[in-house]
Amino acid sequence: MKLTKNFASDNHAGTHPEIMKALGRANTGYSLAYGDDEYTASAVRKIREHLGADVDVYFVFIGTAANVLGLKAITESFHAIICPETAHINVDECGALEKFTGCKLVTVPTVDGKLTPKQLAGKLQEIGNPHHNQPKVISISQSTEYGTVYTPDEVKALADFAHQHELYLHMDGARIANAAAGLNCTLGEVSIASGVDVLSLGGTKNGLMFGEAVVFSNRELGKNFKYFRKQGLQLMSKMRFLAVQFEALLTHDLWLRNARHANEMAQLLAHELATIPQIKITQKVESDGVFAIIPPQYIPAIQAKYEFGVWNEATSEVRLMTSFDIEESDVLDLVRVIKDCIR
Amino acid sequence: MKLTKNFASDNHAGTHPEIMKALGRANTGYSLAYGDDEYTASAVRKIREHLGADVDVYFVFIGTAANVLGLKAITESFHAIICPETAHINVDECGALEKFTGCKLVTVPTVDGKLTPKQLAGKLQEIGNPHHNQPKVISISQSTEYGTVYTPDEVKALADFAHQHELYLHMDGARIANAAAGLNCTLGEVSIASGVDVLSLGGTKNGLMFGEAVVFSNRELGKNFKYFRKQGLQLMSKMRFLAVQFEALLTHDLWLRNARHANEMAQLLAHELATIPQIKITQKVESDGVFAIIPPQYIPAIQAKYEFGVWNEATSEVRLMTSFDIEESDVLDLVRVIKDCIR
Amino acid sequence: MKLTKNFASDNHAGTHPEIMKALGRANTGYSLAYGDDEYTASAVRKIREHLGADVDVYFVFIGTAANVLGLKAITESFHAIICPETAHINVDECGALEKFTGCKLVTVPTVDGKLTPKQLAGKLQEIGNPHHNQPKVISISQSTEYGTVYTPDEVKALADFAHQHELYLHMDGARIANAAAGLNCTLGEVSIASGVDVLSLGGTKNGLMFGEAVVFSNRELGKNFKYFRKQGLQLMSKMRFLAVQFEALLTHDLWLRNARHANEMAQLLAHELATIPQIKITQKVESDGVFAIIPPQYIPAIQAKYEFGVWNEATSEVRLMTSFDIEESDVLDLVRVIKDCIR
Amino acid sequence: MKLTKNFASDNHAGTHPEIMKALGRANTGYSLAYGDDEYTASAVRKIREHLGADVDVYFVFIGTAANVLGLKAITESFHAIICPETAHINVDECGALEKFTGCKLVTVPTVDGKLTPKQLAGKLQEIGNPHHNQPKVISISQSTEYGTVYTPDEVKALADFAHQHELYLHMDGARIANAAAGLNCTLGEVSIASGVDVLSLGGTKNGLMFGEAVVFSNRELGKNFKYFRKQGLQLMSKMRFLAVQFEALLTHDLWLRNARHANEMAQLLAHELATIPQIKITQKVESDGVFAIIPPQYIPAIQAKYEFGVWNEATSEVRLMTSFDIEESDVLDLVRVIKDCIR
Repeated sequence: MKLTKNFASDNHAGTHPEIMKALGRANTGYSLAYGDDEYTASAVRKIREHLGADVDVYFVFIGTAANVLGLKAITESFHAIICPETAHINVDECGALEKFTGCKLVTVPTVDGKLTPKQLAGKLQEIGNPHHNQPKVISISQSTEYGTVYTPDEVKALADFAHQHELYLHMDGARIANAAAGLNCTLGEVSIASGVDVLSLGGTKNGLMFGEAVVFSNRELGKNFKYFRKQGLQLMSKMRFLAVQFEALLTHDLWLRNARHANEMAQLLAHELATIPQIKITQKVESDGVFAIIPPQYIPAIQAKYEFGVWNEATSEVRLMTSFDIEESDVLDLVRVIKDCIR
Repeated sequence: MKLTKNFASDNHAGTHPEIMKALGRANTGYSLAYGDDEYTASAVRKIREHLGADVDVYFVFIGTAANVLGLKAITESFHAIICPETAHINVDECGALEKFTGCKLVTVPTVDGKLTPKQLAGKLQEIGNPHHNQPKVISISQSTEYGTVYTPDEVKALADFAHQHELYLHMDGARIANAAAGLNCTLGEVSIASGVDVLSLGGTKNGLMFGEAVVFSNRELGKNFKYFRKQGLQLMSKMRFLAVQFEALLTHDLWLRNARHANEMAQLLAHELATIPQIKITQKVESDGVFAIIPPQYIPAIQAKYEFGVWNEATSEVRLMTSFDIEESDVLDLVRVIKDCIR
Repeated sequence: MKLTKNFASDNHAGTHPEIMKALGRANTGYSLAYGDDEYTASAVRKIREHLGADVDVYFVFIGTAANVLGLKAITESFHAIICPETAHINVDECGALEKFTGCKLVTVPTVDGKLTPKQLAGKLQEIGNPHHNQPKVISISQSTEYGTVYTPDEVKALADFAHQHELYLHMDGARIANAAAGLNCTLGEVSIASGVDVLSLGGTKNGLMFGEAVVFSNRELGKNFKYFRKQGLQLMSKMRFLAVQFEALLTHDLWLRNARHANEMAQLLAHELATIPQIKITQKVESDGVFAIIPPQYIPAIQAKYEFGVWNEATSEVRLMTSFDIEESDVLDLVRVIKDCIR
Repeated sequence: MKLTKNFASDNHAGTHPEIMKALGRANTGYSLAYGDDEYTASAVRKIREHLGADVDVYFVFIGTAANVLGLKAITESFHAIICPETAHINVDECGALEKFTGCKLVTVPTVDGKLTPKQLAGKLQEIGNPHHNQPKVISISQSTEYGTVYTPDEVKALADFAHQHELYLHMDGARIANAAAGLNCTLGEVSIASGVDVLSLGGTKNGLMFGEAVVFSNRELGKNFKYFRKQGLQLMSKMRFLAVQFEALLTHDLWLRNARHANEMAQLLAHELATIPQIKITQKVESDGVFAIIPPQYIPAIQAKYEFGVWNEATSEVRLMTSFDIEESDVLDLVRVIKDCIR
């Protein structure tokens, strides 16, 4: 069963053809295992070109692992990690963070998935009190789970707040490419250069077969990560096949072409939906997702043609995700289906 | 830097061309994420053809994860897992087992990497004593880290012993294909059909780009595994690209062709080394590895041409691994180099 | 520095004289260690008289341990434990629960520290979805952190809800004696007999030097607890000195005399405060704590005479705890001080 | 059932009368909870008098906790802790160390329970290799589980070795008093002053009701311990009752009187046993335990009169422990019983 395209997840797309080609190129002869190979060294250099010469880079398989292990590297078990209530690490990782780090997540309700320094002030009251987890990290998602983005200035404000209070700033960048494309910024400007200490650099949602990178702003922060990666079940033996995907993604602006396209499709979709009076767009469309309230009676019929998820049953808010290989015709056909169902 | 072939690890080889083709085939259109796709269902059916209709099957990225999460599914934190001193879970996984399960490894010295019921009797003394970890699992490797194999009868004897004492039998099958090929048995006969409760079914060392499967002998044992897999950082989003590799490996006997070839190359190597009086083969050659004592003064010169590992510095015992794509000419050239160095 | 009495915590009191006498009685000759002694057997019998013949009983040092290890015994690491936002396990245990069990706490906002089945319905949506922690336990405190209590019928309603959904009901009974005394019920009626599966039976806050018990409603639930207790750092070697305290607490109604007295002192305090127009009692006074809003400008002067805690800085709500050995004159003197400061 | 005295464990004795008196003295009025009280401050000062002005001191309930949490404070989860095979943390703590720290124990076989730098050299080979736990701590017991002791020079040699290799030296001092008494040294000379970084300072086996202390050689090492103690289930609320016991133990040389007496009883016992030709003393008697081979046919009859443990079934080696309140007449009666049984 091949699926028609859908709007349920940017994970339903396949692997970009340029990535497939890179995998084929890497499949030549023997190569040292576990990352001691030339493909890995080259991919690390590429990431440093984008994120800074001093960053420390480690490849892992999936986003959950990038988040959990990146956070493990900068916490002790008694720490608290502050994040929005909607954070992927809080709601979508089956408690992987708590299991592996022992830390507690302290969650902050938000309207748009974004934290601000103002919201955080009240979370730092119990410093030094052994009855309470000690705040150590602020974790944000770029772009957020609501498709919104942090400007570099907003990231800087959070980083400054964090560093003033001896906290770290962690960024879940599963969709950082979409954020950077949406802001017309470099990958660095929306993350490390604005003060992020540890970044999960996403690949899978932007056209890779699999693969994420954990990027530390400096090598001191990452010095023990190779052990956490192995102990955390993320050290790939034939590493060249992970690294070469990142190399390709960061070459000839593939990351940007893919992200920009997905974002444009989201803009198109939002623009079209805005013309339907029964539908209300609920979040700014700044990356590759559109959040909208669709009256519940219409949803099943639409889903029968195009899969997508209901984000909030209570309010009938849905999430419509685009991707690097959704096409304009797919979007327009979805809009047609919606209009048909609602009419 | 492309490496010439070497004998350091079966992880240094690339991806088999039939696997690459399968990856290409799967890269068509959209597919449900996280294993709810047709490729995954098909690969599970294939594994059931080989290992039994009732087995429960879950794909993970790497062997360490297959071992750790498979063992987590059948233990409580206060349990002990009994294994040979040389077990991969004991010496090569950076304590991943202890970190994720909390269990203690109770190790048994062996001469050939193999356990027998006789050796285990003394390990079950403290049953019911809360000061001691309670034995719950016997873990064996098939083939072992020494390249030796367990016959189906030997596996059955261990399984019977385990089940009589209310223990489980776990098998690290990173190289199970080599064991089955060496024994001229099916994959099932050397594992599940002989009483193994949980099997790590290896793929990477036999030609996959990446991928292992955790196989439970029945669905009750595996009932919570989907949660442990997610919490244990092993749920791949674009799962079709993992599953399709297993599908290809188990089709047209690719698993057997690859394993048999690697084993034959090991036999050839052992046969040739046996003609060199200064070298002593130390273990039976029953799968894809040859263990031999080479006088230490010759080793650096040989390694300058072909990489391989020194297994035991004290005795100057080395490990020479073949693989699915090492060729007869590679083996003979290695032998030539060795002879040149020793002469 | 001996403190004058205060209202900051029921942990600031000492050890009841009858408990001290019991400790002296137990200090005779030799006794088997680790609970294999007659004092322990006798204390277990006593608890069974109060809580039911089939309960399984284990002594631990502190309430945090009783909660964490009792919950560990009935959960897997991927489970969620649902509790009120104000639960001690959520806010006052430095993440001990997350560290030791790996579970996630799912918190429910309440006005009085109490859960109802109605509030819980929305928390059971993601059953079977591996991306989300699976709900397994509802945890309530009896009495609550706000000093309120659950009637036996309220406990039953939660137990029925839990069992219908294949969840367990856990009760943090650090102050269960105060709850039972306030409800004029037996210890069993407010806990096990109303459907609680696992109970932390408190002792320290009711006059012991130290000591809590983990009580399982049946022996199957507790069958592995002796291992979790040892592994969880709670197996006392000279156990007789813990057990004999519980024996004394449950003899001649000491538990009830102590709890009733503390409750009466709380009633007296609340009655007196109600006469002060600037003060507003915020919670029903049903056990040994009084919650009240005192205008912030008066608090420092009152605290200079009698220590107590500010529960909520934002609303200037304070917590005033009584105890088994606070006296009427202490309460009246506190009231006098408050009136003096406010006047 | 009051036991007659026995030789099974120094945990079967009760609480020394001077400790009971101290508990009574502390039971006066109110006291701040969780260690913010004068009794705790005073006990810490006392320990500093014995172990050095710069040490950082924290009280916990039991020895297992002192070991596990002290080691947690100086390790990451990927570390290895090197210890003798016979170490209590390895064989008698139900895997508490692995569960709480995630670390692996690397064990060294010894003849007398003691490590030497020479034995350790081979354990430091895999530094920097992410496939292997990284050695970080050497853990020794003073006195050992065989009753033998390390001289200050022997401790220094291990500390120097550890520090040269950037490891820490941890000491399980459950019976440090017996070691110091046996060596005619101060508590400091046999531990911190000789280079120990983290010490479990035992109390329970030397006459306390319960209580151990974790002592760090400097405050930097202990800076996060208060959080680990709370998260590790060891923060006592009515702390004064733990602290005051240590105060009493370290006053008027109670620690030394108790330990010296137990040691003398062990010497007496060993001296008498040496006169029985069928019995062979197997270890130097340097603290409060005697290890001896007694022919197996005699053991049950002796145990019928006096409990003690068989240490090694295979060799019929038994362990006979004395204690602070065993008396000369008890020892002589045991010897009489043994002679009667053997005759």
